[in-house]
Amino acid sequence: MTSSEDDIIIEEILAAASKSSTVSLRLGIGDDTAIFHPPAGRELLLTTDQVIEGTHFLPAEHPAQALGHKCLARGLSDIAAMGGEPRCFLLSLCLPAWVTPGWRKRFFKGLFLLSRELDIPLAGGDVARGEHFGADVTVVGSVRWGKVLLRSRAKAGDTLYVSGRLGGSALGFERLRAGAKTSAAAVRRHLYPEPRLALGRFLAGDLGVGAAMDLSDGLSTDLSRFLRASNVGASIRAGQLPRFRGASVAQALHGGEDYELLFAASPKRAVPESFEGLELTPIGTVRKGNAIVLETEAGEIPLPSEGFQHFDSAS
Amino acid sequence: MTSSEDDIIIEEILAAASKSSTVSLRLGIGDDTAIFHPPAGRELLLTTDQVIEGTHFLPAEHPAQALGHKCLARGLSDIAAMGGEPRCFLLSLCLPAWVTPGWRKRFFKGLFLLSRELDIPLAGGDVARGEHFGADVTVVGSVRWGKVLLRSRAKAGDTLYVSGRLGGSALGFERLRAGAKTSAAAVRRHLYPEPRLALGRFLAGDLGVGAAMDLSDGLSTDLSRFLRASNVGASIRAGQLPRFRGASVAQALHGGEDYELLFAASPKRAVPESFEGLELTPIGTVRKGNAIVLETEAGEIPLPSEGFQHFDSAS
Repeated sequence: MTSSEDDIIIEEILAAASKSSTVSLRLGIGDDTAIFHPPAGRELLLTTDQVIEGTHFLPAEHPAQALGHKCLARGLSDIAAMGGEPRCFLLSLCLPAWVTPGWRKRFFKGLFLLSRELDIPLAGGDVARGEHFGADVTVVGSVRWGKVLLRSRAKAGDTLYVSGRLGGSALGFERLRAGAKTSAAAVRRHLYPEPRLALGRFLAGDLGVGAAMDLSDGLSTDLSRFLRASNVGASIRAGQLPRFRGASVAQALHGGEDYELLFAASPKRAVPESFEGLELTPIGTVRKGNAIVLETEAGEIPLPSEGFQHFDSAS
Repeated sequence: MTSSEDDIIIEEILAAASKSSTVSLRLGIGDDTAIFHPPAGRELLLTTDQVIEGTHFLPAEHPAQALGHKCLARGLSDIAAMGGEPRCFLLSLCLPAWVTPGWRKRFFKGLFLLSRELDIPLAGGDVARGEHFGADVTVVGSVRWGKVLLRSRAKAGDTLYVSGRLGGSALGFERLRAGAKTSAAAVRRHLYPEPRLALGRFLAGDLGVGAAMDLSDGLSTDLSRFLRASNVGASIRAGQLPRFRGASVAQALHGGEDYELLFAASPKRAVPESFEGLELTPIGTVRKGNAIVLETEAGEIPLPSEGFQHFDSAS
């Protein structure tokens, strides 16, 4: 990338970026690194996620603004799953020739609307040119010392819960490809996932739950990772899965990118039916052993792990 | 990427990765985020850098091991330029179909040799598939409170210094493309840049220098950024530029990826001629105003900013 193009894009980013009054930070854009003052008495959380053209999205069907939102939302969902608070983020962009100034503007709008809404400033970044679009966002978060949610803390006898309703993103993706409007409920669900940050903090704080993860690759895949980390199995009640309106059981079980939280709580915990309007549904029970079974009307069947395959390998 | 391929690559990374005994860290690979305990009494440094196929390297001429080294070395050089100490890093990889298991093994070897040598563990990452190779490395560092080196602290009257010798990487790149062996000195210089971490700490600590940056895009481009951040100009003595053996004046002035440090020190500071065997050469003086001039035998001429253009736009 030539310096002048580089400078234009960096100016665009700085103009679009929000500044935070609460986070102690000097922008990395303008010096060799960002300087960040970690909050006292907290552990830091670090996560990084890519959004790659052709793998995670196709430019022809994915609006730029939604893509900007998703780039940041993915990492925020990871922070939510740990019970943490996002503090700042870094953005690496690889921009191909098809990216126009208008597209960039909409992309930055989606990214910085979310950044501003949650008061998470941009700490720094890197801009390069390449043949395909790629974005990598690193989010730095914090969590009260000793209060982190881990995948490895589920215990036999715990009840398994999910937040919200599942399968909406998979349904929305299907409808988007079929030409549905971006304002349709399921399509919006696919394009603008909402990281469950307040819920994560509630689980780790007031509710005192220990084990959680976010559902990015589909319940069947993520549940198997969750249980493996805790060295346990589970039985899931198929009939109790909270499905997004119009989503199939297969979409609720295997569809990716819902970004809801999965968590395990001792039956002694008084888990409410909802938190700030978001349903919390018991979907099954943690068991000893490694088997994951689905309780159906026809009896117990092993739960196949057929989670989200990005469409490069799925099609 | 299918889960099984994903799992294989993550297993490869975990097998190749070094664990640190000194950094308090839980691996992000295996949970939603990494957990990092910031050292007390220090500011944190955050930096992110991409290495993109076709923009920063061509697979046919760049050995995989050297590429792994460079992916990490770029961010470490930024930490060095702030006077800091690297603590851990995150790695995002986008892998195309041409990447073989053998290539990955050499890539991880280069990356983790450097990681192990400097005791900087991998904290987490993301693996995806795409049409072109891309790596993004985020480095987290720390620096003693109030001791950070900034670009913005150069003052009129300061002497400008560079470490080491310039132009070696540009010369090595030219020779590599002409078919030289990877063991040739200039080619090694291009392929295995050494972040000047000990020097950065010395400048910020014992020497008490305030202003520095690393030379990644060529002296003429980076010097102009450095001086702009401090709102000053400079005169550079062309005859005093320390040139890598065989490098031209143009390569020393404009060649990128030397990863040496540029710094400004008051004439009162007793800057040694070398630090741990690395030359520290005065190359000019900071002046009031915004002009950057080159002092030559023919008199003063404006220094053109013709720094490193990645070869997609330069060729």
